[in-house]
Amino acid sequence: MSPTPYIQLEQEWRRLHAFHGALALLRWDAAVMMPRGSAEVRGEQLAALETEHHALLTTPRITRLLDRAQANAQGLEDWQVANLREMRRQRDHAIATPVSLISRLARATARAEVYWAEARRQNSFELFAPHLEEVVQLVRDKAALLGQALGLPPYYALVDEFSPGISTADIDAIFKALSRRLPGLIREVLAQQSEPPTLPISGKFTSAKQRALVVEVMRAIGFPFDRGRLDESEHPFTEGVPGDIRVTTRFDSADLFTGLFGAMHETGHAMYDLGLPQEWRDQPVGRDRGMALEESQALLLEMFVGRSRPFVSYLRSLLEKHFAASGPEWEVDNLYRWVTRVQRSLIRVDADELTYPLHILLRYELEKKLLSGELAVRDLPAAWNESMEQRLEVRPSGANDGCLQDIHWALGSFGYFPSYVFGAVIAAQLWESLRAHLPEMDVQIGHGEFSGLFGWLRDNVHSLGAKVTVKELMKHATGQPLSANALLRYLEHKYLETRA
Amino acid sequence: MSPTPYIQLEQEWRRLHAFHGALALLRWDAAVMMPRGSAEVRGEQLAALETEHHALLTTPRITRLLDRAQANAQGLEDWQVANLREMRRQRDHAIATPVSLISRLARATARAEVYWAEARRQNSFELFAPHLEEVVQLVRDKAALLGQALGLPPYYALVDEFSPGISTADIDAIFKALSRRLPGLIREVLAQQSEPPTLPISGKFTSAKQRALVVEVMRAIGFPFDRGRLDESEHPFTEGVPGDIRVTTRFDSADLFTGLFGAMHETGHAMYDLGLPQEWRDQPVGRDRGMALEESQALLLEMFVGRSRPFVSYLRSLLEKHFAASGPEWEVDNLYRWVTRVQRSLIRVDADELTYPLHILLRYELEKKLLSGELAVRDLPAAWNESMEQRLEVRPSGANDGCLQDIHWALGSFGYFPSYVFGAVIAAQLWESLRAHLPEMDVQIGHGEFSGLFGWLRDNVHSLGAKVTVKELMKHATGQPLSANALLRYLEHKYLETRA
Repeated sequence: MSPTPYIQLEQEWRRLHAFHGALALLRWDAAVMMPRGSAEVRGEQLAALETEHHALLTTPRITRLLDRAQANAQGLEDWQVANLREMRRQRDHAIATPVSLISRLARATARAEVYWAEARRQNSFELFAPHLEEVVQLVRDKAALLGQALGLPPYYALVDEFSPGISTADIDAIFKALSRRLPGLIREVLAQQSEPPTLPISGKFTSAKQRALVVEVMRAIGFPFDRGRLDESEHPFTEGVPGDIRVTTRFDSADLFTGLFGAMHETGHAMYDLGLPQEWRDQPVGRDRGMALEESQALLLEMFVGRSRPFVSYLRSLLEKHFAASGPEWEVDNLYRWVTRVQRSLIRVDADELTYPLHILLRYELEKKLLSGELAVRDLPAAWNESMEQRLEVRPSGANDGCLQDIHWALGSFGYFPSYVFGAVIAAQLWESLRAHLPEMDVQIGHGEFSGLFGWLRDNVHSLGAKVTVKELMKHATGQPLSANALLRYLEHKYLETRA
Repeated sequence: MSPTPYIQLEQEWRRLHAFHGALALLRWDAAVMMPRGSAEVRGEQLAALETEHHALLTTPRITRLLDRAQANAQGLEDWQVANLREMRRQRDHAIATPVSLISRLARATARAEVYWAEARRQNSFELFAPHLEEVVQLVRDKAALLGQALGLPPYYALVDEFSPGISTADIDAIFKALSRRLPGLIREVLAQQSEPPTLPISGKFTSAKQRALVVEVMRAIGFPFDRGRLDESEHPFTEGVPGDIRVTTRFDSADLFTGLFGAMHETGHAMYDLGLPQEWRDQPVGRDRGMALEESQALLLEMFVGRSRPFVSYLRSLLEKHFAASGPEWEVDNLYRWVTRVQRSLIRVDADELTYPLHILLRYELEKKLLSGELAVRDLPAAWNESMEQRLEVRPSGANDGCLQDIHWALGSFGYFPSYVFGAVIAAQLWESLRAHLPEMDVQIGHGEFSGLFGWLRDNVHSLGAKVTVKELMKHATGQPLSANALLRYLEHKYLETRA
């Protein structure tokens, strides 16, 4: 007896999964290891493999098998039904974009990534502009086609690719609630945080020592160094597949916390990927549930855990060990005030939890305008700087502090930024549930013990893979619908009410 | 008008070339960067991509296109005719091996590579044996099928895969000439080399300083660090594609020359790959002309150049700069005697030019016996040690000094070893021609100037790619048929007649 249509589909996706892993490595290498002059060659390789992946995913055979499996779905388990739904989702997205466009986009983004890094080295947007222009045009074409196929406005079709199950109405409601409350909250916090004064943490911290600290923290968290790596790159990221997961960070010799919290953010992603259901790891249902949930796991570790008083108390002992840190500025109270200080600043990845959503609102508005053509690429630096001044009352001194700071647009990732805000929203809701279900969590974190935290996350989030939608998952894990309320409660409590 | 069958074939091979590059990176990463626990996952990725590559190469469509292009070959240029021949050669080799076997072999070798490295760490053949056993069985099946398809004895079908155009008769004739003269020559050289006594070069040389020296030498040679890398691995190798070429070496803190000459060997491979015809780089005719020619380029740089008096004189100044080397043992005469000393030794990659072919003869005989079943894997260590004692009068103290020293069998590369001896034979013939055509070469090398050398090699060897056979190439570049004569002349002259 030949395998059922559903089983044949599983086999097809097993092949696709290997392509996915190879592509992940090619991208990781391009950002971490590859010599600069090899970008063109790498672009060709990525384009060819993505084209092949796309071709495998969009053959008429897949469509036929999906239809036949759907018609015979009564014998399938829940997981298989969900898998079938995710297979169709992938295919629907893929078939909307023609091969030639995929392959041009792959080539253009491979080039743009290299020129983005070079432009950063020279702090000059001009070097990057023509390559961004090319990417914008190709993404615009893609968004139009995708929107048509999915019945969504072009930009929201791109959002749907990254964060399925989050609608235009959800985005509007949450961004509205945040922009209503945050500016006032920031003002209140800034007015009161100067007392008692916070002593700055400064010094010269070598990469080697910072790395040793970060590795110790990652080990405590449970990152498996026998099946993963930590490296350095221009912009921190996580790549790879569960079983070979690769995290990067960026060390700043003058700032101890950039590298640490960057690595913790990425370790949050990695822990999510590692907790995905092992038996489904080469199937769509075994993948993460989109970027909003990915970001929630990253922010939960970086912000909710990393910048909590219990974690800072654990960190205090590590700083003593790795940097022989002593003196009043290294006391727990001061350290905690230092890592939770709020300021109107220029760099998104260094921004505090309160101002962070405003960084995203800025990008969300600009990328919509870039795609609609309302904003020309050459006018991006000026538009960026003006918007920063309006929203955060600070003005970039150059491109590196401004519109060159993120890699996302170089990679063609338009529609990704909203997932950062949704990540914070989701993280806050999960955090409330975690505290309710795990009263001993603070004590554990204070001892560098993270198994309680990750046990709950694995059971309620990670192990579900893509079986349910984000909203279903949240309802089940927290008992609440998705809203900005928990995030606002968390921020008010942390930054206004219990501030030392 | 649709493209001609030949043009369609070029398009197909452009896709195959991208797969080739991706596979090269997956293998490089596995040996240099990958966490140890990820071998299984990497094995699956390699297997899937190799299977896909194999499937693309063996579709009936390719066969049809090859037949139609062949029937309409009158309008093609020389390069295109040669390209068509190489396409068919690749397809003939590929079609002889079924997909299931390719994919099992890919998985088995990925595992075996990891266990080989682990076995070396523990100096224990037992850890590696079951994995080698699996590889041997699969390679045996492959050799049988390939031999049947190509009308060759199984083992020689494997040799043909690595070094096309070198026949059983060629191997026999050359191995016979070498084994007739070498043992006597080694005795004569050993008897006379003790006068004057050579002062040993010893000390503690950090990896960082060795790396700096090696990088300076590689830069002088012309290795492009903006399109290539130098890393460390268990066993030196070269991977990648022209445009992103990756060389590794292994530094020994007690021996300055292991790392340097290892890197020069691999740089010889890299320079060949970089000199291949750029306009054919994604086509079969633009690839290297097999492993014997690859090895000739590696040995030419490592042995003929690297262990020449002019190079040693150039090296002398670098050693002073990087290691503040001074004293009688660092004088040019002594250094030259040190790097050209002959000894009966255990490790192939550290062996001198005179004893090296005997190391290969041993492997050639053992791997034929492993494949025929005459020798069981479990008996390999004993057979190896006995053969070493017979041929070279030395006996390994453990597996690392013995049959665990090379990675080739773990990778399934049976039939590869003869290409090392053919590499030396070819290098010697090219070297004779080079000296005749470029009388100023010694002076140039003495100044760390390699453009004359590589200019001639590019014109006469590299830029031909796979357009002509090895024998045609040699006839054209040297005016002589392939034989062991030039190698024996070179060895007698260097080690007996002009020995200081």
